[in-house]
Amino acid sequence: MDQELDQEVALRSALRQERLTDAGRLLRELSPVEVERFLDRSDPHQVPIVFRLLDKELAVQVFAALDPRQQSQLIRGLRDENLQQMFGQLHASSQARLLDEVPAEVARRLMAGLGSQQRADAGRVLGYPSGSVGRRMSPVLVQLQAGTTAEHALRQIREARIADRHRDRLVGLPVVDADHKVLGTVGLADLVCAAGEDLVEELAASAGASVLATEDDETAARLSAEHHLLALPVTDETGRLVGVLTLDDAVGILEDEESEDSARSAGAEPLAQPYLSTPVTRLVRSRVVWLLVLAVGATLTVQVLEVFEQTLEQLVVLSIFIPLLIGTGGNTGNQAATTVTRALALGDVRARDALRVLRREFLVGLMLGTALGTVGLLIAGLVYSWGIGLVIGLTLLAICTVAATVGSLMPIVAKRIGVDPAVFSNPFITTVVDALGLVVYFLIARAVLGI
Amino acid sequence: MDQELDQEVALRSALRQERLTDAGRLLRELSPVEVERFLDRSDPHQVPIVFRLLDKELAVQVFAALDPRQQSQLIRGLRDENLQQMFGQLHASSQARLLDEVPAEVARRLMAGLGSQQRADAGRVLGYPSGSVGRRMSPVLVQLQAGTTAEHALRQIREARIADRHRDRLVGLPVVDADHKVLGTVGLADLVCAAGEDLVEELAASAGASVLATEDDETAARLSAEHHLLALPVTDETGRLVGVLTLDDAVGILEDEESEDSARSAGAEPLAQPYLSTPVTRLVRSRVVWLLVLAVGATLTVQVLEVFEQTLEQLVVLSIFIPLLIGTGGNTGNQAATTVTRALALGDVRARDALRVLRREFLVGLMLGTALGTVGLLIAGLVYSWGIGLVIGLTLLAICTVAATVGSLMPIVAKRIGVDPAVFSNPFITTVVDALGLVVYFLIARAVLGI
Repeated sequence: MDQELDQEVALRSALRQERLTDAGRLLRELSPVEVERFLDRSDPHQVPIVFRLLDKELAVQVFAALDPRQQSQLIRGLRDENLQQMFGQLHASSQARLLDEVPAEVARRLMAGLGSQQRADAGRVLGYPSGSVGRRMSPVLVQLQAGTTAEHALRQIREARIADRHRDRLVGLPVVDADHKVLGTVGLADLVCAAGEDLVEELAASAGASVLATEDDETAARLSAEHHLLALPVTDETGRLVGVLTLDDAVGILEDEESEDSARSAGAEPLAQPYLSTPVTRLVRSRVVWLLVLAVGATLTVQVLEVFEQTLEQLVVLSIFIPLLIGTGGNTGNQAATTVTRALALGDVRARDALRVLRREFLVGLMLGTALGTVGLLIAGLVYSWGIGLVIGLTLLAICTVAATVGSLMPIVAKRIGVDPAVFSNPFITTVVDALGLVVYFLIARAVLGI
Repeated sequence: MDQELDQEVALRSALRQERLTDAGRLLRELSPVEVERFLDRSDPHQVPIVFRLLDKELAVQVFAALDPRQQSQLIRGLRDENLQQMFGQLHASSQARLLDEVPAEVARRLMAGLGSQQRADAGRVLGYPSGSVGRRMSPVLVQLQAGTTAEHALRQIREARIADRHRDRLVGLPVVDADHKVLGTVGLADLVCAAGEDLVEELAASAGASVLATEDDETAARLSAEHHLLALPVTDETGRLVGVLTLDDAVGILEDEESEDSARSAGAEPLAQPYLSTPVTRLVRSRVVWLLVLAVGATLTVQVLEVFEQTLEQLVVLSIFIPLLIGTGGNTGNQAATTVTRALALGDVRARDALRVLRREFLVGLMLGTALGTVGLLIAGLVYSWGIGLVIGLTLLAICTVAATVGSLMPIVAKRIGVDPAVFSNPFITTVVDALGLVVYFLIARAVLGI
């Protein structure tokens, strides 16, 4: 770590002082992963400069390791022949993701550089809908026919002469019948440990046997993680093998999903690239639309308060508790929504569990409201008056119950109507709960204080 | 999926009607993973009933697959001999995690059932601090001595006679020298594809060579994911091999961390067990302390408003915009905080980048504030008066700038002082920004409107 820090400092200072030869020399001492990490942490305008300083072979490797959005920002400055070479080195799934990011004109130029086989591969991947596992799977390197012995299978793997960097993808191998239909997966370790004459289909595990290429990529990745699958065969609708989701692919999908859920939960679009190398204008764009939508939604609170303006004028002290009360409501709602959203993502809760969740969160809200309401009643009662204390206590009880119930329900409703549950984000729930809370507050105040 | 649903419905109805023989028969048709999932989705009081219906062998496998907290809830109802047998079947790392969950008296009884070797293994794992990779690593099944040929290594693996269910952990094998110091890791696929006389140390990759057992588990897991490491050797401080972090272990750690961050971001303690099988009282406990702390923090807003009570009395209309203004501030702050927290978790941003992040978020806040302020100025100006419009516009500009800056800084400050950045959660930031926003609002109102 510390050594890496020294190198980074030396490299940044060489770049700042425009000593590009020194910078190039320092870059040559780094591994592709280290260069990638350096680019991830560079200011957006420096990324293309650094990239042009790389040796050609290193540049190809680094390019392959970048996020699609970073790739699309880089290729604007590259000449066609370099570009097409780098593009040609990517896996079909990475090619498809990059093509999604670039304008149609650039996509056409990129495709033009591919050979006919590669173009067919990329085209096949692009045929699967965005967000499907077909878009993220790895190509099949070796598939074993049923009837093959373990000894023969090992020879087949050796003779396939897979390049070093792809070999880790051989740890789980799909077994198919004569029609290319998937029977299961056999672990490389099982082949090594088996008696030479054992048949591959007998060694193969059928648990979580395969997944359709059109299946949601997150669902497939969670299946891999839950069943500890080193390789999950991916099939077309006739059951024929078209690719493999490695555990490594699954990790990548899950990390992307987490980043997306995390951004969405705060009402922002995911960046899809590292923070420091993202242009400031893109940060603004990822947030401004949601902020405006939420602000428009928040005019609901203005309307509610206008309705109760007379009550407010009679008793200005009521306005003093507004931020505390709606803040507590928002917090309670967010706790419930976040818990349920995560449970939905993990598959612990499903859309059809709506009633069970609702019953539980109603109880939770009631208990939380009782605890907070009692504290509020005592403090406000002692500091202000028992009338005010009663209003605050009852309002907290009501707001917590409503907020937990509404907050837990919204992600499930989103899931039912086929929307990402994280879209009903925390700020969205806060806005709804704010408006509801204000109505509850003033109704209780009017009733208790007789105004 | 649909078939699973049918089975679940049949099973739940058998349990509800207390037809336990039928339920036991239905359970025998399920795989361990399916039973685990059924337990994850069962009401807390039903979990021990279902578990007692399982055949002994299945029960052992299911028990091993549960979360430590679920295990600790189950074992209260088990007899000592069953308990000790199940405990004995767990990996040392799972044993350590369960021991962390149970009372000392139960821990003593659990340990009493272990053989001396197992007790030593568990004791070694317990010697590493909670949250370290030493607590989560897998034991070494096979280690290869430098100087071993590929052919001999494969024979050694075969002769180790590793049980079926552990074989997937053989896909990456640590290479050590005569002193048990780690030289690197060799992939099983590399061994299979190599010429028989190649030496294992020549085949071994040294990238991300090893990690200390006391290292933070999340850091180690991210290293595995980033470098696509099937197996990461774990060493003691003298460099000697003590265990292996498999990619599968890494996935488990990352999922736990995501669940933790997600709960913390909403101001709740992580559940550490599936939602539906968590007792309601535990849900309340995971939330009530944070809610009370935040409510106490929110009394800051009450104090601010008391200071400006006279201004409020003069112009009640000002109170109407309070929820909208502080809501927008909270949203902006949360967007910034969530983005930076996620970037810190991924290693895209480090604590020493504080100034760069601050500069960027100040700019982002300024741009967002300009956009929202302009809209606010126009709408409030047209609906109310241009004086009010100016107050709203300027306040939105100031609040957005302050909120983005403060929101981005808090996770970095947390990281610097060695606290989980997710602890400065969204509700926490909202509370701080609420109070700051109110001060800004009333100062601007007084200045512009001359009151």
